Order: sequence, then C-alpha cells, then structure tokens
Amino acid sequence: MNFASDNCGPAHGEILNAMVEANRGFAPSYGADTLMTEVQARLREMFEAPEAEVFLVATGTAANALALSTMAQPWQTVFCAPLAHIQTDECNAPEFFTGGAKLTLVGEGDKLTPAALEAAIRGWTAGDVHVSQRGPVALTQVTEMGRVYTCDELAALTDVARAYGLPVYMDGARFANALEALGCSPAEMTWKAGVDAASVGGTKNGCVGVEAVIFFQPGKSWEFELRRKRAAHLFSKHRYLSAQMLTYLEGDLWRRSARAANVRAARLEAGLRSVPGADFAAERQANMIFVRLPRATHQRLRAAGAVYGLYEGPLEEGAPEEPLLARLVCDWSIAEAEIDRFVELARG
Amino acid sequence: MNFASDNCGPAHGEILNAMVEANRGFAPSYGADTLMTEVQARLREMFEAPEAEVFLVATGTAANALALSTMAQPWQTVFCAPLAHIQTDECNAPEFFTGGAKLTLVGEGDKLTPAALEAAIRGWTAGDVHVSQRGPVALTQVTEMGRVYTCDELAALTDVARAYGLPVYMDGARFANALEALGCSPAEMTWKAGVDAASVGGTKNGCVGVEAVIFFQPGKSWEFELRRKRAAHLFSKHRYLSAQMLTYLEGDLWRRSARAANVRAARLEAGLRSVPGADFAAERQANMIFVRLPRATHQRLRAAGAVYGLYEGPLEEGAPEEPLLARLVCDWSIAEAEIDRFVELARG
Amino acid sequence: MNFASDNCGPAHGEILNAMVEANRGFAPSYGADTLMTEVQARLREMFEAPEAEVFLVATGTAANALALSTMAQPWQTVFCAPLAHIQTDECNAPEFFTGGAKLTLVGEGDKLTPAALEAAIRGWTAGDVHVSQRGPVALTQVTEMGRVYTCDELAALTDVARAYGLPVYMDGARFANALEALGCSPAEMTWKAGVDAASVGGTKNGCVGVEAVIFFQPGKSWEFELRRKRAAHLFSKHRYLSAQMLTYLEGDLWRRSARAANVRAARLEAGLRSVPGADFAAERQANMIFVRLPRATHQRLRAAGAVYGLYEGPLEEGAPEEPLLARLVCDWSIAEAEIDRFVELARG
Amino acid sequence: MNFASDNCGPAHGEILNAMVEANRGFAPSYGADTLMTEVQARLREMFEAPEAEVFLVATGTAANALALSTMAQPWQTVFCAPLAHIQTDECNAPEFFTGGAKLTLVGEGDKLTPAALEAAIRGWTAGDVHVSQRGPVALTQVTEMGRVYTCDELAALTDVARAYGLPVYMDGARFANALEALGCSPAEMTWKAGVDAASVGGTKNGCVGVEAVIFFQPGKSWEFELRRKRAAHLFSKHRYLSAQMLTYLEGDLWRRSARAANVRAARLEAGLRSVPGADFAAERQANMIFVRLPRATHQRLRAAGAVYGLYEGPLEEGAPEEPLLARLVCDWSIAEAEIDRFVELARG
Repeated sequence: MNFASDNCGPAHGEILNAMVEANRGFAPSYGADTLMTEVQARLREMFEAPEAEVFLVATGTAANALALSTMAQPWQTVFCAPLAHIQTDECNAPEFFTGGAKLTLVGEGDKLTPAALEAAIRGWTAGDVHVSQRGPVALTQVTEMGRVYTCDELAALTDVARAYGLPVYMDGARFANALEALGCSPAEMTWKAGVDAASVGGTKNGCVGVEAVIFFQPGKSWEFELRRKRAAHLFSKHRYLSAQMLTYLEGDLWRRSARAANVRAARLEAGLRSVPGADFAAERQANMIFVRLPRATHQRLRAAGAVYGLYEGPLEEGAPEEPLLARLVCDWSIAEAEIDRFVELARG
Repeated sequence: MNFASDNCGPAHGEILNAMVEANRGFAPSYGADTLMTEVQARLREMFEAPEAEVFLVATGTAANALALSTMAQPWQTVFCAPLAHIQTDECNAPEFFTGGAKLTLVGEGDKLTPAALEAAIRGWTAGDVHVSQRGPVALTQVTEMGRVYTCDELAALTDVARAYGLPVYMDGARFANALEALGCSPAEMTWKAGVDAASVGGTKNGCVGVEAVIFFQPGKSWEFELRRKRAAHLFSKHRYLSAQMLTYLEGDLWRRSARAANVRAARLEAGLRSVPGADFAAERQANMIFVRLPRATHQRLRAAGAVYGLYEGPLEEGAPEEPLLARLVCDWSIAEAEIDRFVELARG
Repeated sequence: MNFASDNCGPAHGEILNAMVEANRGFAPSYGADTLMTEVQARLREMFEAPEAEVFLVATGTAANALALSTMAQPWQTVFCAPLAHIQTDECNAPEFFTGGAKLTLVGEGDKLTPAALEAAIRGWTAGDVHVSQRGPVALTQVTEMGRVYTCDELAALTDVARAYGLPVYMDGARFANALEALGCSPAEMTWKAGVDAASVGGTKNGCVGVEAVIFFQPGKSWEFELRRKRAAHLFSKHRYLSAQMLTYLEGDLWRRSARAANVRAARLEAGLRSVPGADFAAERQANMIFVRLPRATHQRLRAAGAVYGLYEGPLEEGAPEEPLLARLVCDWSIAEAEIDRFVELARG
Repeated sequence: MNFASDNCGPAHGEILNAMVEANRGFAPSYGADTLMTEVQARLREMFEAPEAEVFLVATGTAANALALSTMAQPWQTVFCAPLAHIQTDECNAPEFFTGGAKLTLVGEGDKLTPAALEAAIRGWTAGDVHVSQRGPVALTQVTEMGRVYTCDELAALTDVARAYGLPVYMDGARFANALEALGCSPAEMTWKAGVDAASVGGTKNGCVGVEAVIFFQPGKSWEFELRRKRAAHLFSKHRYLSAQMLTYLEGDLWRRSARAANVRAARLEAGLRSVPGADFAAERQANMIFVRLPRATHQRLRAAGAVYGLYEGPLEEGAPEEPLLARLVCDWSIAEAEIDRFVELARG
C-alpha cells in the first residue's frame, strides 16, 4: 500500500526492454545518438510544433531549473504559486541555475489565477532599477495539490503574461496525467494555450529517469545545450535517455500509463468517500488525492503498513478524532487490491 | 572500429540485468533505497574506510563539480593540470558549482609534478586579500593522456598539498583502469596516498551512467547532499543508480571490465608499434593510446569506417606523410578482431 | 520641499571637512589606514563589544548583501519582512551575493512578529534535503515603514531565531534614527537584544557614502574581507571611508544628526495632523511618515514643487478627494520653514 | 618616499573642492543628478562617441567586473594576460560577477600579442559544447608591468578578436597615463583601435574614488544598470562620484595629473640608471618602474623609510649583492625631492 509518490513505483517493462535493446554496440555519445533524432521528430509531431527544440535530462528539477535559467535573467523574478515544486522542493535549484533570480509567490496555494498573477506582476514596477525585474511565469500541470489547469485557464494566465511581455513555462512533471484528465492534445495544453516552454515528465509516469524539455519557438537551443553541459546534465551515454523517452511516447505508453494512474486515483477517491470523517482538501483531477482523515484512521493505516505523506502534525500526539492531511499518490503500478485494502482499512 | 571513447560502448549485460532486477515493486526514493545501503557498505569495505561518505550521481562532470564545490570556496583556486577534464571538457561546470572559483593550471600537459604544484601554490601569496586564495588540488587518474600516477607519485603530490593545508581530489572517471594498471588496492591509490576525496567512475567502464563520490573523512555529508539536490543531481528513482554500482563492484566486475579495456589497449599498442611512422605521444598505461600517424594512414582508416579522435589539423589538407595525433580509447567491449583490423589497415 | 529620501540631502560639513583633512600625504590603501584602526576601536567601545569585527563599505546594499552572504549558505533561506529593503529594493543583490539563497517573506508589511517568524521557520522542515534550508533572520531598524522595534521586540524575535539556531542580522541603514527614537544604547539595540551582526548606516544620516558592518562575535573576519574584495567593495583609498565614519561617530554627530531628522519628522507629523483628510498609514517613530492625502492635495503640493514618494495610483487620474499614499522622509538638513510651507500647502 | 602605489597618494585639491561644491542642498539620488548628465556629455565629446553609454562606479575592480559581466556569458572564457589585474588582483571578482566565466591566460607576462591571442582563441574549439566558449578579450592599458600598447598594437589585437567575433575590453585603471605616454586622443586609443568598452580610471590618478565605464556602442545600458545595482555599486549619493569625474575631466586635470606622474617616473628612471646594479625588468613608459636592485640597496632604502613593492624573495635572507625586483609607482603627488632622495640612497 505505497501511496508515497509516483517516483516510488517501478518502471514499465517496455522502458527497461528499450534500454536493454539500446544496449547494443557503439553509439555516438552526448546526445548524438540516432534514437535522439527520433525522439525529437516524435515530440515535434505529437506537439504539432515542427520547429520545437527538444532536450532530455534525467530529473524533473534539472528540467525546471535549466529551462527557467534560459528564460530568466539573474536580476529578474520568476512568478509562481506558493506551492510550486520550484519553490518548495528544489532546495534553491532555480536560484542556483539562474544565477540568483528570485521567486515571487503569487496568490495562495498551488494554482495561479489571472487576477493574482496580474497583481504580482504589477507589484514589481517596470523600469525601476532597484527592484527585481519581471521575468517568466512558471506553472505546474498537474499542480502540487493534484489539480489540473483547463486549457482556458492556461490561456487566461498566459494572456496576462503576454500583456507584460513575459514568457510562460510549464512544469510538466505529470504532463501526461494532466493530458488524460483534460482529454486534450499536447499542443492544446501548451503552445496553443500560450505556453512557451514545457517539461514532459517521464520519471513519475513509469520511466527510470527521463524528462523532456521543449521550447516551442526555436532560438534557445545552443544556450540550453551549454547550460545543460555546464550543469553536468548532459549524459555521455545519452542513448539510454533517448530509448526511454522514445518508448514512453510510442504506442501512447505515456498516456496509457497516466490513465492507469488517474483511474486508480479515482477508485481510491471513490472508496474514501465512504470513509467516516474523510474530508477532501482539493478536488481530485489526476492521480493525487489530498484528504484529511482522523488521526486514529491514520494510525490504523500506518500500522498496517500503508506508506504516504502526512501533514499538519505528528501522528503520535493529539486526539484520535483530530484530522491530519494525507497526500495519496497513485502510481501507474499500484494494484487495485492494494487500493481496496487501503480503503477497507480506512473505513475501520 | 570505434575508438572514440569508452562512453560510446554498451553497458555490461550484468548492469542492465541488475536494473531490470531492481525494477520490482515500490522502493523509497531519493537515495533511501536499500540497495544504496549496500553500495555504501561495499565501498567502505573495499576502500578500507569505515567512515567514508559515499554518494552516487549519474555523470562524471557532476561528480567532479559537486565534490570540488564542497572543497573549494568561491574565492579560492583549484590547482589542476592544463589538460585536466575539469579545465578542458566541462564547459565551466567547476566554476559554476563552486560559485566562481578559479582553476590554476599547473605545469604542462596532463600530469602534475610536485615541483610544478609547489610553484603554483606559492604563486598565490597566502594572506593577501587581493588574490585568489589557495584551494584544493585536483588530479585525474587515469590522466587525460592515458597515463597513471603511481602511488608514490600521488603521495609526493599530496605531500605538497598537505604542507599548505590543501585538500586533494581525484577525478577517477577511469579509476578502475588505473587500479588495474597499478595492481594496487583502492585504499592504496586514494587515502593511503593522501587523497581526501575521489570519484569512482562507472559510466566509462561498462555502466549505463553512474559515478560514486567518496569522502574518506566524514563531515561533508549533509553539505554534499544539499549541493547535489540543489544541482538537480539527486535521482528520485535512485535505486537504478544503486543497482548499477552494486553490480559493478560485485564479483569485481569493475576490475574485470577495466582489465579487459587495458588489455585491448595493450594489444592495439603492440599492433601499432609495427605501423610505419607511428609515433607514440604518451606511454600507454591504461586503455588510451595517443599516437601520431601519417595523414594518409588516417585517411585510409577513416575511409574504412574507423572512429576516433583526431587532432592537430584537418585531415583533408596537407602532405600525406605529415603526422596527425590520434586518441584511441579502448572500451571494454571492443572486439579483438576490430583491433586487429584497425592495425592491419594502419599498416597499409 | 524635498522629502524624497534621506539620501537626497547634503552631507554634514564636518564630514566633508574630515575628508579634506584626510587628504594629506600618503596613506596605506585597502583599509590599512590608521583612521580605520580608530574607527574599529571607537565602534567596539560604543557597542561595548571589544571583540567585534568591523568593516566599512560605501553602500547600504553592499553592507546588507555582504553581511548576509557570510551568514547564509546558498541553499538556505533568509527570513525577512515582505517590505524589507533586501526584498524590495536591492535588485536581487542578496540572491547574488549569497550564491542563490532564497528570501522567505514573513507575515505582512514591514515588521516581523515572533509568531509569524516562528511559523515561517517551521514552514521549512529541518533535515529535508528537498527544501530551502533555514538561514538567518534579517530585520530592518528603522523599518521601511518608518517604525522602530523596541529592544523587547528585538529580543522576542531573536529568541525565536535562537531557538532554531539561526543568526540574526539587523539592516541598520537608519540605525541612529532608531537609537534616537528608542533612547537606548547601541549595545542594547543589538547584541544585548540577541542581534549577531548589524550595519550602521552613515549615508542616509549625513555622510557622503559609508556604512559600517559589525559582527559582534569574532570569526568571520577573513571571510568577510575576501567577500568584500571579491565583490569589488574594498576601497583602495579607504581613508576617505574611515574619515567619514570616524567623524560621524565623534561628538555623537550620528545621534545629533538622527535627532535632527526625527525632530523634523515630528514637526511635519504634527503639522499634517491638522490637514483635512490626512490619514496616517503607520505610526511615526523616526524620520519617515506614511500618510494618505487626497489626490487634490498631492496635486497642489507637487505643483508647488514638493518632492516625495507617491503610491497607490497615478496622480493624474481619479477623483480629487480620493486618497493616495505618500512617503515623506525628513533629512537632517531639511529646513523647518520648508516643513511649515509643506504643511501650509497641504492644508490648502 | 612612497612608491607603493598610485592609490596611496592624496586626491587633488580640485577634486575635494568639487565634492564640497556638490554638497549643497538636495539632489536626485542614484545617478539622476544633473552633474552626471554633464559627465556623460563630456565623456561622449572627449571620446568623439556621441552614442557612448557612460557609468560611474567607485572602484577599479567594480568597473572591470561589471563591464566584463555584460560582455561574457557564464559558460565563456575571457582572454587576458597572465599578469592582468583581473587575474592576479581581484580575488575572483570576474568569476563572481560573470556567474562563473573562466579566464584563459594568453602568452606570458603583462602584454598580449596577436599571435598568442590567436593561438589561445583557437585553443577553445568553436561549437564544442564541452569546452569553455570563446568570450571577450581583456587588456590593460597601462599594463601591470607599466607598459603601454601603441594604437597599432591595439588595432592588431582587436583585429584578431574581431576575426572571431569577440568583443574587446580595456581595463583603463591608468587610462590617462597611457594617453599621455602615447600622446594620442581617447578615441584613437579605444574605439578607433577597435576597443568596444573601457574603464577610465580616476582613483589612481588623483581622485578620491571614481571610475568611468564606457561602452562605445549603445545597447547594454539597462543591463549594466541592473548589474551595477545588483552588485551594490549604485551610489545613492551619486553626485559625489559625478563631481569627481567632472572635475577630473575639466581643464584636462586627468591628463595633467597623469603627465605629472609619468614625468616623475621618468625622473626616477633616469636617476636609477646611474645606480650600480640597477637592472630594469621592463621599459618604463608611464608611471611605473620595475627594476632589480641588490638586496643591500633595498635594505638601505627600506631602512630609510622608502615604501614600495618588493618581489622574488624575502629581504632579510640572501647575499647582499643578490638582486630583488622592485615595483616603483609614481603618484602625481610625489615630490621631486623624494625621488631624488630615493635615488641618492639607492646609489649608496
């Protein structure tokens, strides 16, 4: 019963097969492998963006920090939600990679709104040498609370950014989960909605460790490559990244895997609706559930071996009926039986 | 006939098997996997260093830049050879990770000498606020010209560093190749010779992508972890790094693999000795050969599909007998038949 | 009628005299001048801190950024008020000098509270490699809204910091104005209240350009010196900084000057209390006043040549009675007649 | 008898008078003072560069590091002489301000040659993501050994840079001394010779502390301003910098002052030519002399109170006749009698 994160589960067998398959003979290193040519062609086609520039890295933080560093000057500020991964979970990587740019937290929680974004941008007066200069807008799709921006919501946000001449980056660590939740195309969820660059996560959706970074307009390619090398994120045996990504995209494995995860989360959610005291902190839209459960329920679950994130206090102290917030993430691989057992235990 | 680099060959089947093996069920992420506990225990044992702190990253540049950044302050200088990988092949990664430390090039070529090192250290007057401050000494074992420091040579260099209170880092991208060349123990080639920290490369010796960083004295652990995370080099699905390294060390695969590469290079060297005009630029000691061959010989080899590094001028222009420098790296996997064919072609 | 800032007025004649006086013959450069020895002795005495380490720089931002960079690691966060100068007016200098540390905004407005500070510190879980690590607490005395922390308030804040092992920095760009407002000693307002390091501003209080940075505990001296040099803030002709600071401290010029500024602000405040529609946004405690006045009043003042900061909208649009926020800073040199004329104009 | 540096002498009386003169009433801060408008106009006129962008800072290291950081990307290398101030005397400031650019040392000593420059540039292969990328060329005029590039020498160097598309920066800490040595115009020594940006030092030539940075082509203005503010080098009471620079340029004070220094150095040189054992290490062209004198001579001079830089060994040990290198810098203010006395003492 592991709901800790979608980076705790195994990779798909196809992904590992592809790596084994790629493990034949000699191949040019540092991204010059022929598989990477295929990856680029495939992503351009899937995103209906024939000029897009595509790069692979091995971690989500690398994708975010490298992409943002090509979009933000060191004297600028990135606009993001207070719960954005780049703010809460990357140990100052964005500040490091950008050479000291600031993060300005917009509004509350996990999701940007156009009004809050506009207020935040206006808060840094243009043309004033004393203040942090306006830089890119960064949003996470799926958000850190498991919610999904609709394409209209994205367009409304990017409209605000565009009005101020600011580029927009999408942290797509759970890109495919969002696509599945929305039922839209990659292009619709990105450049057609005004997004300038995005990461497309593989690691949290059944790969070993690979993320794509896509710039929809050309021009940043050489700078990104230099930044990637300088940050030690250019793999010599790059073919194993390419092989993962190619297989991930082939036959829509990425969407099938995300669908599996989302469907499992829906099952878990449905089950939890019948649990006494269960109080959902955010609408479930993809593969993450945030729900408050009584302390006693948590104690029972933990005692039975369930693994998941627990917030708002130590489990050991406090009244049994007092609620604590749980984060439950469904990996593509979690068995339905595990979910059902978890729900049963929660029901008490 | 690929002699371009030992990062162009495939990984050992055992390595990929281990990754497939590790791909079962759920595992704690970010280095908390049980395999990593084994990796640490194994490396401590093999290095006879029960307190050593051990970390895994996926690229050699990450290992170097992260290790050096824990050893050098931003206002210091790292002492290294002019041909050191950190100087010539990392696109300013050491400067980036250290926050602006300088590299001071010591002497000539690929290999440090105690005299040149002492002169370089003395060149930066201690206690002068205007100058770059003395920082760590970095050396590469095997060097970039394929040469190997003996344990005595290492001790002589670290004595100089020690006399000035400076720590010593060993870039061990080809650590096992050096071990095999010297026939010594890991401890003898590192801390017993005065080395404070080292990387132990896996990628260039038959892994998919993994390098260990070892600090022989405890104390830097938490700082290293923070630096690794901040640089986006902490893998969520860390078990695949652990699995590689564990298998790499088990049954002495690392030494067997290095031995294979060195032996192949010896065969190639022996063959080339009979080639007219072959002029060796450095003594072969591990798996790399630097040899000058006439331009016409190179043209013949290239025409036959041989792949390797070529320096000192364009192949297309110049007299047929004029020599050009070749770098020939033997991967563990290169077939003896390929070597023999290469030599035959070179003979003309 | 210039109330724009206390950096728009002239320096005291004594300060310039001291510079002229210092302009004789040869003197050791880079801080080795004998005047600097006197400055250190004088500040140690005045702060009752015989081991304090003292440095001079020429700008307030340099004092803040350099001091904080010796207190915060790049992977840490500085805790400060949302209106802190380091957040709003330094164009990412703290992020630059620290190598990418983050600023965490505590509570609302200009002034920290112990509760908000504790909540903010707790917000970054200790021992979690993914998050920004807890770093120094920075507060501004006088705050950016012209308010002054009492010594008790300071002690309550530093108690919180201490409980978490975090150092405390005081941005004292208007240090003397605060001293005068509180009527306490420099020691009481700093290390006796738990402050670890402080800047003591001269520039905004009648100097040409000089700020002292004081560490109350020894140990950071050499690091600070290296950071100062590396940031190009070590003056070769340092004697002119020393001369300013020495004269500034002698005969309590610093306190007399601050008193003059505070008294003038009190006079301005008293006058404004009789202005129709005047609405004070913060209690005046030192030499700054934040007051809302009707747009028509502002238009009259501006037309008459008054210079001051105006916020919350363009002056040109909107109803005449609609209020806009003004920031009125009294320099030590502002003439009482100017104040009275301003008040008269405001009265209409 | 102080020949330690031209930053140990006093400022011209006119410079301090100008500061006193500027110390009247209120003035806009942060560079918006009217004096700065005059400075810009004056420099544009003197450099025959009506579009030049002009900025003031207070230290030479700030001028160099800020200028270079607008010309070099973090993944690039700056090309400079091994004895360049930016390499030997700025405690990694260029590396800090550029975010980690490297310095590549060109040839030997203090002065670049076209051949060595071309070789160095060629050394970093274009288009290779692994290596430091080619960046600006930096040269010092007067060099650190007191020598002066002729305009033809400058043109030959900038031709090399131009052939590779690289910009050229001139560290003009002793700009006026070079002008006087060459007897040419500011334009001839800079943009007409292919220089893209230069600093014009005031501090070492009779100012309190001011340096101009000039970009001959517009376009970098806003970036420079942001970098200056972010580095804490934007002065609030900027008028005192402007006043210095304006007076420095007016009535050719800068050239008169430099002439005085150069003439004094010529007198010193002439005198030293008659000193037994005097061996000049570099041709004197401006206000610096590098000469070897017997140890006994140094001991006599030092005993008599002479102050100057001494290299190549401790004064206390060694044979009396053994020579040690002295650096003798003539400030504009050094009295002829002091020079004569020094020579007399040296003669023994």
